[in-house]
Amino acid sequence: RINPDRLWDSLMEMAKIGPGIAGGNNRQTLTDSDKEGRDLFKRWCDASGLAMGVDRMGTMFMTRPGTDPDALPVYVGSHLDTQPTGGKYDGVLGVLSGLEVVRTLDDLGIRTKHPIVVTNWTNEEGARFAPAMLASGVFAGVIPLDYAYGRTDMDGKSFGDELKRIGWVGDEEVGARKMHAYFEYHIEQGPILEAESKQIGVVTHGQGLWWLEFTLTGKEAHTGSTPMAMRVNAGLAMARILEMVQEVALANQPGCVGGVGQMKFSPNSRNVLPGTVVFTVDIRSPDQAKLDGMRARIEKEAAAICAKLGVGCAVEAVGHFDPVTFDSVLVGRVRAAAERLGYSHMNIISGAGHDACWAAKVAPATMIMCPCVDGLSHNEAEDISKEWAAAGADVLFHAVVETAGI
Amino acid sequence: RINPDRLWDSLMEMAKIGPGIAGGNNRQTLTDSDKEGRDLFKRWCDASGLAMGVDRMGTMFMTRPGTDPDALPVYVGSHLDTQPTGGKYDGVLGVLSGLEVVRTLDDLGIRTKHPIVVTNWTNEEGARFAPAMLASGVFAGVIPLDYAYGRTDMDGKSFGDELKRIGWVGDEEVGARKMHAYFEYHIEQGPILEAESKQIGVVTHGQGLWWLEFTLTGKEAHTGSTPMAMRVNAGLAMARILEMVQEVALANQPGCVGGVGQMKFSPNSRNVLPGTVVFTVDIRSPDQAKLDGMRARIEKEAAAICAKLGVGCAVEAVGHFDPVTFDSVLVGRVRAAAERLGYSHMNIISGAGHDACWAAKVAPATMIMCPCVDGLSHNEAEDISKEWAAAGADVLFHAVVETAGI
Ligand SMILES: NC(=O)NCCC(=O)O
Ligand SMILES: NC(=O)NCCC(=O)O
Repeated sequence: RINPDRLWDSLMEMAKIGPGIAGGNNRQTLTDSDKEGRDLFKRWCDASGLAMGVDRMGTMFMTRPGTDPDALPVYVGSHLDTQPTGGKYDGVLGVLSGLEVVRTLDDLGIRTKHPIVVTNWTNEEGARFAPAMLASGVFAGVIPLDYAYGRTDMDGKSFGDELKRIGWVGDEEVGARKMHAYFEYHIEQGPILEAESKQIGVVTHGQGLWWLEFTLTGKEAHTGSTPMAMRVNAGLAMARILEMVQEVALANQPGCVGGVGQMKFSPNSRNVLPGTVVFTVDIRSPDQAKLDGMRARIEKEAAAICAKLGVGCAVEAVGHFDPVTFDSVLVGRVRAAAERLGYSHMNIISGAGHDACWAAKVAPATMIMCPCVDGLSHNEAEDISKEWAAAGADVLFHAVVETAGI
Repeated sequence: RINPDRLWDSLMEMAKIGPGIAGGNNRQTLTDSDKEGRDLFKRWCDASGLAMGVDRMGTMFMTRPGTDPDALPVYVGSHLDTQPTGGKYDGVLGVLSGLEVVRTLDDLGIRTKHPIVVTNWTNEEGARFAPAMLASGVFAGVIPLDYAYGRTDMDGKSFGDELKRIGWVGDEEVGARKMHAYFEYHIEQGPILEAESKQIGVVTHGQGLWWLEFTLTGKEAHTGSTPMAMRVNAGLAMARILEMVQEVALANQPGCVGGVGQMKFSPNSRNVLPGTVVFTVDIRSPDQAKLDGMRARIEKEAAAICAKLGVGCAVEAVGHFDPVTFDSVLVGRVRAAAERLGYSHMNIISGAGHDACWAAKVAPATMIMCPCVDGLSHNEAEDISKEWAAAGADVLFHAVVETAGI
């Protein structure tokens, strides 16, 4: 078993970097805080004798050598970046549990056949630069490197420039590494495990996603002196689209969600009807047909809503991944480990996207989940217990060691 | 008659300060550009021998003396600040036409009995600091000075600090001046005069307004892993409130408008349901009962919408003025001047708020309007012709000189 106190202390230490305003974290990707978090993680890896490789997306690969020079590494990872008002565990738990696996192997004097690589993927959250899971997407060959470099944040700063600015452009070609297997341990970010009183989620699938960025073009005009009949009201069109997205998601229950987290009015003045309204619709489902059906219906109905109001409507897909089925051998190994260790467990579908979803394109991959309080995540109040954290890390340890071989 | 070329040249010269991105202006109040605009206006006034007074709200009063030492001044004014994406004429036309009245009097060697004071009110637009017409509101004794000083922009900077920063805190007590009369010449900002082919709008009334700032409190949560039934969706509540505001305005036709220009999601990340959504509903009517009825209905229905979704709903009135009836003597003088000069004219109700609405609380006041192309304002494409500008300035000249006496 891993060392729960050491894992927890590391989590608390990392949480001091990029503190939020309500007990959580704001350590968004490629900020100074992200750089500080990377530096701390590197110091810990150095202390455990791990060798660092960094690719051109800034992803950190920290290697513990194996005994077989020809064996491909087993990768264990997640991300250290957070939402602007994020929790202390989302992503961080997976990276630091990977480190805890290595530390525990050192404690026990165990050397594995396959190397073990603890990985910190760049920009998993997608809060600052859409899409989410950007570096693993490039790694999997799905997102072009140039496209990733050109993504901009709300201040117009590009991913490429910001990666350079914090000094984490590596020299490795992205995706050149070959993986024997990929494991990711993460908090559930949803309510199911807690409701079912299970310690371990054996993740069999991941939901697919579309991020549809709408740009509605209205006519900037005075809110007071422009008669109702003369308005080309992009704000009203937006309101109708939000209601429609809600209806479409509800019509596709169970197993679909839809909502909007990002919104921008221009010029955003109280007495000016907006000239443009930009927002991103986030829809998800583990069912490919439902997911694509929702997208088609939303685009069609949004176009009709806008046409009726004379509002221009452009849609760009700024994020996408298909539903994922994780590797059945690895899934079985996770389930067996939980069973062997005496942890209660159940199969679960990941509601969130994870780097494992892209890793699954290029290697056998799977995930392990632990519960989180009230299913709350992407909120500074996100919470787990030390025991929950440790149980999943134990399962990770067993599954990784079994896969890496002794 | 005034000098159309001189007036137009001054308008074009002022428009060079704080240029927009599409041919208009971004000269928001208390910015460096506002300061530059004030400096240019002061230089012009200096050249005409006007004496400057500045009050503690930064409003500029530029005085041409009268022949009667006991006579109260006739005020002519408007504002030089603009929207973030504003036009070249909204406000500026009124200030520079006031200057043109003085220049024309100088050309003709006319001295009036009452002094004439050309006025540039601070923060008429309310784009940066709500409410609009802030300085004239303090002048009229309706808004406390401390309240005005404490208003903040979206970056958290206060009106008081920014006024000091640009160096325009005057020493006059706000509202200490007494007015014989107040005239304001403005573009219509609506479609009526152009549609009716009239050169002059004789402004008999002004619409009243409420700015209702809603703060909706939802639960920040992951857009992917939070089931639909567990969401406390402040964005959805906002959408329903926008639709409801539209319905309420349409139910109160003719003579009412309602819309939303400013919107803010927090944390504004694509995969986070918003924890808070803040936006301002702008409703107006020339009919007091309708205006207050709309407000009551909107607040009641918004509360019900939010309650149904479990969303917190707080409303603050961040701007308000009652419908205004302008002084019948001055209105008659404007109409007579238009008639005498051979300009086509009609009575009109101002759809926008103006400093004249507050001045009317403390003095006989009225307004003159000229058409604008397509009724478009609060848009960089706002447009008028030199002839339209000159016709209204001629009427202003006649009405002011008649009121100031020779
Ligand atoms: N795990 C997580 O929150 N990832 C961000 C990508 C997503 O929106 O699902
Ligand atoms: N004239 C003008 O646009 N003033 C701004 C105040 C308002 O919103 O009516």
